[in-house]
Amino acid sequence: MRILVLHGPNLNLLGEREPDVYGSMTLAAIDAALKAEGEKLGAEVKSVQSNHEGGLIDALHGAPGWADGVVLNPGGYTHTSVALRDAIKAIGLPVVEVHLSNIHAREEFRHRSITAGACVGVIGGFGWRSYLLGMRALVEMIHDE
Amino acid sequence: MRILVLHGPNLNLLGEREPDVYGSMTLAAIDAALKAEGEKLGAEVKSVQSNHEGGLIDALHGAPGWADGVVLNPGGYTHTSVALRDAIKAIGLPVVEVHLSNIHAREEFRHRSITAGACVGVIGGFGWRSYLLGMRALVEMIHDE
Amino acid sequence: MRILVLHGPNLNLLGEREPDVYGSMTLAAIDAALKAEGEKLGAEVKSVQSNHEGGLIDALHGAPGWADGVVLNPGGYTHTSVALRDAIKAIGLPVVEVHLSNIHAREEFRHRSITAGACVGVIGGFGWRSYLLGMRALVEMIHDE
Amino acid sequence: MRILVLHGPNLNLLGEREPDVYGSMTLAAIDAALKAEGEKLGAEVKSVQSNHEGGLIDALHGAPGWADGVVLNPGGYTHTSVALRDAIKAIGLPVVEVHLSNIHAREEFRHRSITAGACVGVIGGFGWRSYLLGMRALVEMIHDE
Amino acid sequence: MRILVLHGPNLNLLGEREPDVYGSMTLAAIDAALKAEGEKLGAEVKSVQSNHEGGLIDALHGAPGWADGVVLNPGGYTHTSVALRDAIKAIGLPVVEVHLSNIHAREEFRHRSITAGACVGVIGGFGWRSYLLGMRALVEMIHDE
Amino acid sequence: MRILVLHGPNLNLLGEREPDVYGSMTLAAIDAALKAEGEKLGAEVKSVQSNHEGGLIDALHGAPGWADGVVLNPGGYTHTSVALRDAIKAIGLPVVEVHLSNIHAREEFRHRSITAGACVGVIGGFGWRSYLLGMRALVEMIHDE
Amino acid sequence: MRILVLHGPNLNLLGEREPDVYGSMTLAAIDAALKAEGEKLGAEVKSVQSNHEGGLIDALHGAPGWADGVVLNPGGYTHTSVALRDAIKAIGLPVVEVHLSNIHAREEFRHRSITAGACVGVIGGFGWRSYLLGMRALVEMIHDE
Amino acid sequence: MRILVLHGPNLNLLGEREPDVYGSMTLAAIDAALKAEGEKLGAEVKSVQSNHEGGLIDALHGAPGWADGVVLNPGGYTHTSVALRDAIKAIGLPVVEVHLSNIHAREEFRHRSITAGACVGVIGGFGWRSYLLGMRALVEMIHDE
Amino acid sequence: MRILVLHGPNLNLLGEREPDVYGSMTLAAIDAALKAEGEKLGAEVKSVQSNHEGGLIDALHGAPGWADGVVLNPGGYTHTSVALRDAIKAIGLPVVEVHLSNIHAREEFRHRSITAGACVGVIGGFGWRSYLLGMRALVEMIHDE
Amino acid sequence: MRILVLHGPNLNLLGEREPDVYGSMTLAAIDAALKAEGEKLGAEVKSVQSNHEGGLIDALHGAPGWADGVVLNPGGYTHTSVALRDAIKAIGLPVVEVHLSNIHAREEFRHRSITAGACVGVIGGFGWRSYLLGMRALVEMIHDE
Amino acid sequence: MRILVLHGPNLNLLGEREPDVYGSMTLAAIDAALKAEGEKLGAEVKSVQSNHEGGLIDALHGAPGWADGVVLNPGGYTHTSVALRDAIKAIGLPVVEVHLSNIHAREEFRHRSITAGACVGVIGGFGWRSYLLGMRALVEMIHDE
Amino acid sequence: MRILVLHGPNLNLLGEREPDVYGSMTLAAIDAALKAEGEKLGAEVKSVQSNHEGGLIDALHGAPGWADGVVLNPGGYTHTSVALRDAIKAIGLPVVEVHLSNIHAREEFRHRSITAGACVGVIGGFGWRSYLLGMRALVEMIHDE
Repeated sequence: MRILVLHGPNLNLLGEREPDVYGSMTLAAIDAALKAEGEKLGAEVKSVQSNHEGGLIDALHGAPGWADGVVLNPGGYTHTSVALRDAIKAIGLPVVEVHLSNIHAREEFRHRSITAGACVGVIGGFGWRSYLLGMRALVEMIHDE
Repeated sequence: MRILVLHGPNLNLLGEREPDVYGSMTLAAIDAALKAEGEKLGAEVKSVQSNHEGGLIDALHGAPGWADGVVLNPGGYTHTSVALRDAIKAIGLPVVEVHLSNIHAREEFRHRSITAGACVGVIGGFGWRSYLLGMRALVEMIHDE
Repeated sequence: MRILVLHGPNLNLLGEREPDVYGSMTLAAIDAALKAEGEKLGAEVKSVQSNHEGGLIDALHGAPGWADGVVLNPGGYTHTSVALRDAIKAIGLPVVEVHLSNIHAREEFRHRSITAGACVGVIGGFGWRSYLLGMRALVEMIHDE
Repeated sequence: MRILVLHGPNLNLLGEREPDVYGSMTLAAIDAALKAEGEKLGAEVKSVQSNHEGGLIDALHGAPGWADGVVLNPGGYTHTSVALRDAIKAIGLPVVEVHLSNIHAREEFRHRSITAGACVGVIGGFGWRSYLLGMRALVEMIHDE
Repeated sequence: MRILVLHGPNLNLLGEREPDVYGSMTLAAIDAALKAEGEKLGAEVKSVQSNHEGGLIDALHGAPGWADGVVLNPGGYTHTSVALRDAIKAIGLPVVEVHLSNIHAREEFRHRSITAGACVGVIGGFGWRSYLLGMRALVEMIHDE
Repeated sequence: MRILVLHGPNLNLLGEREPDVYGSMTLAAIDAALKAEGEKLGAEVKSVQSNHEGGLIDALHGAPGWADGVVLNPGGYTHTSVALRDAIKAIGLPVVEVHLSNIHAREEFRHRSITAGACVGVIGGFGWRSYLLGMRALVEMIHDE
Repeated sequence: MRILVLHGPNLNLLGEREPDVYGSMTLAAIDAALKAEGEKLGAEVKSVQSNHEGGLIDALHGAPGWADGVVLNPGGYTHTSVALRDAIKAIGLPVVEVHLSNIHAREEFRHRSITAGACVGVIGGFGWRSYLLGMRALVEMIHDE
Repeated sequence: MRILVLHGPNLNLLGEREPDVYGSMTLAAIDAALKAEGEKLGAEVKSVQSNHEGGLIDALHGAPGWADGVVLNPGGYTHTSVALRDAIKAIGLPVVEVHLSNIHAREEFRHRSITAGACVGVIGGFGWRSYLLGMRALVEMIHDE
Repeated sequence: MRILVLHGPNLNLLGEREPDVYGSMTLAAIDAALKAEGEKLGAEVKSVQSNHEGGLIDALHGAPGWADGVVLNPGGYTHTSVALRDAIKAIGLPVVEVHLSNIHAREEFRHRSITAGACVGVIGGFGWRSYLLGMRALVEMIHDE
Repeated sequence: MRILVLHGPNLNLLGEREPDVYGSMTLAAIDAALKAEGEKLGAEVKSVQSNHEGGLIDALHGAPGWADGVVLNPGGYTHTSVALRDAIKAIGLPVVEVHLSNIHAREEFRHRSITAGACVGVIGGFGWRSYLLGMRALVEMIHDE
Repeated sequence: MRILVLHGPNLNLLGEREPDVYGSMTLAAIDAALKAEGEKLGAEVKSVQSNHEGGLIDALHGAPGWADGVVLNPGGYTHTSVALRDAIKAIGLPVVEVHLSNIHAREEFRHRSITAGACVGVIGGFGWRSYLLGMRALVEMIHDE
Repeated sequence: MRILVLHGPNLNLLGEREPDVYGSMTLAAIDAALKAEGEKLGAEVKSVQSNHEGGLIDALHGAPGWADGVVLNPGGYTHTSVALRDAIKAIGLPVVEVHLSNIHAREEFRHRSITAGACVGVIGGFGWRSYLLGMRALVEMIHDE
């Protein structure tokens, strides 16, 4: 099984950026933890980060053929991007949306997710563990099908 | 470690009620799976179900002293109950909100969660596995503290 | 045929409470009239009243197995209860929503019904006769199936 | 007693138009059933259909003097016509609003009724039987006065 | 100078309809008063009433060539008719909107006028005198041009 | 009979300020025209202008005892002042609201009048003649009582 | 193949009415151009204009049996008419909505189309050519079926 | 004179729950203070707490016959419960709404009170003293009648 | 201890203005009652009334140095004045907002208070006694600090 | 004449992506059809696709100098991109907006187009033919100038 | 060149009022700094402060004849005053709006400026330096004309 | 000191694009003026332009380490980009938002800035001088720290 992990805008700054909100673990460390966990679950993991809405769409388009599913943290595009939502719908792979922080406990404009409606599920609020939980949920779901 | 699992309104009908939306597993089966998973994680698990908003509040109030954390599926109260949100805030325990279905992919009035803002995190869309993921997330979070 | 009549919050006060809005007939008298009408229509009628949102949900859950359909006056929960709406959907029985007063001619916040979307139909504005009309509609609908 | 039955826009197509939503009975058949029911109830029934908002208003204006009450299905004008609402108020006769389908279970823009606030009551969701129920409700109400 | 007076829906009922809101003077009496006032102002007056949105549009379309200006009471169409607004814009004559009642002191949905934005001015709240004031305003405005 | 004419904020600049919107006649000239018209109608006229919301309220409070009615142009306070609305209600005199421009044909935020709901009627869009029309309407209304 | 072209309110004034917005070509000239184009496409074309919402509904109801499709410019009813939308749905023919002007570049209240949701497609902003394009689109679509 | 004090959801946790928001005094201590103050005012005081919306409605229904008035803290139900509002209206006793915190200085969703519109008055922001002030206000109001 | 009582717009008319809404007691009588009550509580009381938003702000600015707290009835400015809210925040004294009527039981636009968010608490609905209760609440709060 | 055809996000997946919504024709096939049609119309056609909002803006910026007009399908950016709208305005070329599906018949958030207000016209709902119709409309419009 | 600096409500308290939000510099010190800067720029500077909406309007009205431009901090009136906006428009002088704090980073109700739409530009968030920047911007703009 | 100047979408067209709105100065000329001004202020200035939301985010991410502050014109992304707002927050440098035009005097959808809440201040409406003022504000602010 192969899983694409897709990190949205500003996530490359993890560990430096507002650590009280997003935690102190770097993106590289998260990716390493995901790879390790993937091995346990029998899944090959590839991670991509982009600050570009179009870059994320390109990456999603590239997923079918290689990946069996996607773990996606759309960052700030969560609340604004219809194009990203369309891309998720378009590729026909299961996508799990994850967030480091609990978006419902932050500013009003973060309470609504446009992209989530096209995903199979959403996990948020558990820091870097949201990724681990999202990957596990995805792998189990794919096994079931 | 002890975990209270709290099931909200209509979840007692699981397996019978709209299986295309909520799956065909009964609540008893979910509770058994949670107990088994709890054992693996070194956690004692107790499950309570109530159709009453006040019953869920009472159960939350009873949690401190016994439980170290709560896995809560507020059902339809998710979108309407300020009183339940206040109860979550009041008890001072970590609470993880879980949903069987992906609320963002359903009717407009289900896209907003009033209770989630008082929880540590939210997991939804993975059927009965949302509970398993929620319990795991909770146990790991408590271990870290 | 068996019909459950379910009275929501404050309806136990009928006859005393704001008679200019809700009429001067007591709930007991309405229930007697419904029983009598039921006999004419060949239907056994059972009436339950609860001020508790959860109590109404419990009663709805208990309906399948005994009742062939439900006449429901959700009272003030009409405008606020997603949990009650979910219960109506969940039980798989035809439910007719009735109101004593015409909710469209009252305060703005009574113009919207959350529960009606899960019912087969709505009858309101005819005082206690709304119940009679609702029961008749329900009985004929069940006969047709 | 004399009852005017007033059918709004597109109801002349009944039986042909979207039978899954509106049923397969024609308007002529409904009118015949209403006449027959009227005889049982001791009421003379006259039916008028118009696709014109102004035609419905004209018909309402013509009702006093002949009719003792009106059964009105405003169709699509339900959700948009202040002029029709004013006409209902103006004629000083009891008017019962009926709908074939349950407007609360359809598109968002059908959930609000502008005309209902001027009527004595509303019945909807029971197909062509909504008319029968509406006529019966009206006749009983007029008898009571 | 020639003035068209255009009465919208339900105004044919004036004197009978809700006299506490609209006064007890009939439409014929108002038209006579307008004719008399017109004579004093050197203006020929013609009055038309229609309950049909399209009838009012037709009448407006017929105005250029005969009339120098229009006094229009759009009744309930005031709050809903874009087509009527377009007609006012289209004919290139000055149109004065009048209302018997003060729309700002009534239901919320009467506070907004869609048609007024295409008129030269609005007069409301003075009962049948709103027409007289509107005609006078119109005549003086035309004299000035 | 005595009429108070009350000019709101920025009306002291009339004739200078945006003449394409408000006309080229000065406030002094309008007041002179109102005095002259008042004489014809048998009414003594006093004019007051203030840029202060509180100044307008003070002037309204001073009206009873001297004036029989008030012609009020609330200017920009039309759309924002609950306190002015309360003052109109409080003094128990008939108040007619006038506007130079047609507020419905300008910016969205000018389409709503908070003060009009407490007045007997509204006249707007006729430039300085709105005042003349308002005074005439007021005088006739007072004569009728 | 036979195509009904249906012109809504105020379109009879084309060429006279606000030529900067709607162009200087008359409705007769447009109808002639449509007939000519129809001949090229092998389609018989019939044109009807009505200022009446109900008249447009009547015309739509008359279309099946004669026409294979409809080109409809609903004019001002575009933004307000649920009844017209219902009529489009009811007749079971493909309907193409056309607009002379680009409704998205005009007043806010013209940005939303209620009728478009029931049509197969929408074309607007190309002046009288919107009709030609609409007819061509319709003819090709019908050929494909 | 007899006064019922009714405490809504989560108030049983007073003293433990978020003391920076709600103060450190327990509910038992507040009830004792209210009893003592009642004695000074010549009023017998009974206190009831419930986390159930229906429980509060039941308690309100039981008040007439025993109590002369009610001091009610609806807690989180303040912002969501139409049923509770209806109960307040139904019992025909004066009810004073009290809040420990100043709801206007907290989250946006706490700024609106649905229940207050059915009460005689509201007091909030003074911690446990809000209850004392509410009881005093109630007693004086009853004395006046 | 010294208390400033600040009366907002239209309160100078108390006793004359809409006595069914605001009661029949004059402002002078209220001020006398407040002085008397102040003496009992050991507080010197000074009362100021202004119809000017700026006048109320000036009075608030003058409070520190003399007063220990303020009882403020912002009248109609309650619902519109950000500047007054800022002044309350700026002076660093405890301010209690009071209302004669229950603003939640009146027009929709009175349900929201802009100023209350900057006050320590709010009391409304008890007629002139709202002032007495507000003063008492303020004095006790200051004693506690 | 030269026409730039600009395809927005996800359109590279045409033929694979949700064929029931978007049709089964690939983007390459559409581009070929457009080239062929362009030849008939005497227009050279160049096609560009980008998933990047900025990429579409770059392409629009590059159009003047080469192209005489643009056919643009903004995809999901239709509903969210002010920057794209600004680019359309900035380049001073006629731009025609096209959509494969009828956006008015889909989710609520697709009913509003931000970009259309800066275009000359909009065509949607005709599948790949929307492009053909858009190119034809554009070519004729440029010929006319 | 002569510049009027106009300070709105509560700015007289600068240095005392919430120094963490507004800084610790007094208004007198700011005025002195502005005078000094004015001298460098060859501009005579006069400063006026008022807590009265009407006072600010009066001061703006007095500006033409003396001043060449105005630097205005409308304080809390920024978000509520249509009358002030009208005054800015009326005087025909360039007005620059300045704010000490960044209004976009504060409460939701401060994000909208009603007055800014009538100004030439806005500067905010730089503490007392916002005034210096505003004056410089104004002087350079006037020089350019 | 080093300052990064970041130009958003469409600003590369400056001088060509709608000169009546944005002025006739090119971006190169603005950058030259900023460099010159920077030299006077002792600051090295680097300018970057991108039409890509992600490109602007990338550029912001690259700023720390080199720049001491950023002058940012987010163009159309001002009103839509949560991702850009997050980037501003993330980099921990002071960012000043500038606009050529006065966004408050343009279309409704430009009145709200999403990015401004994360900046230290905003300057808009002064054409290319907004940049100069922004750089000066930034340099002085950095000097103060």
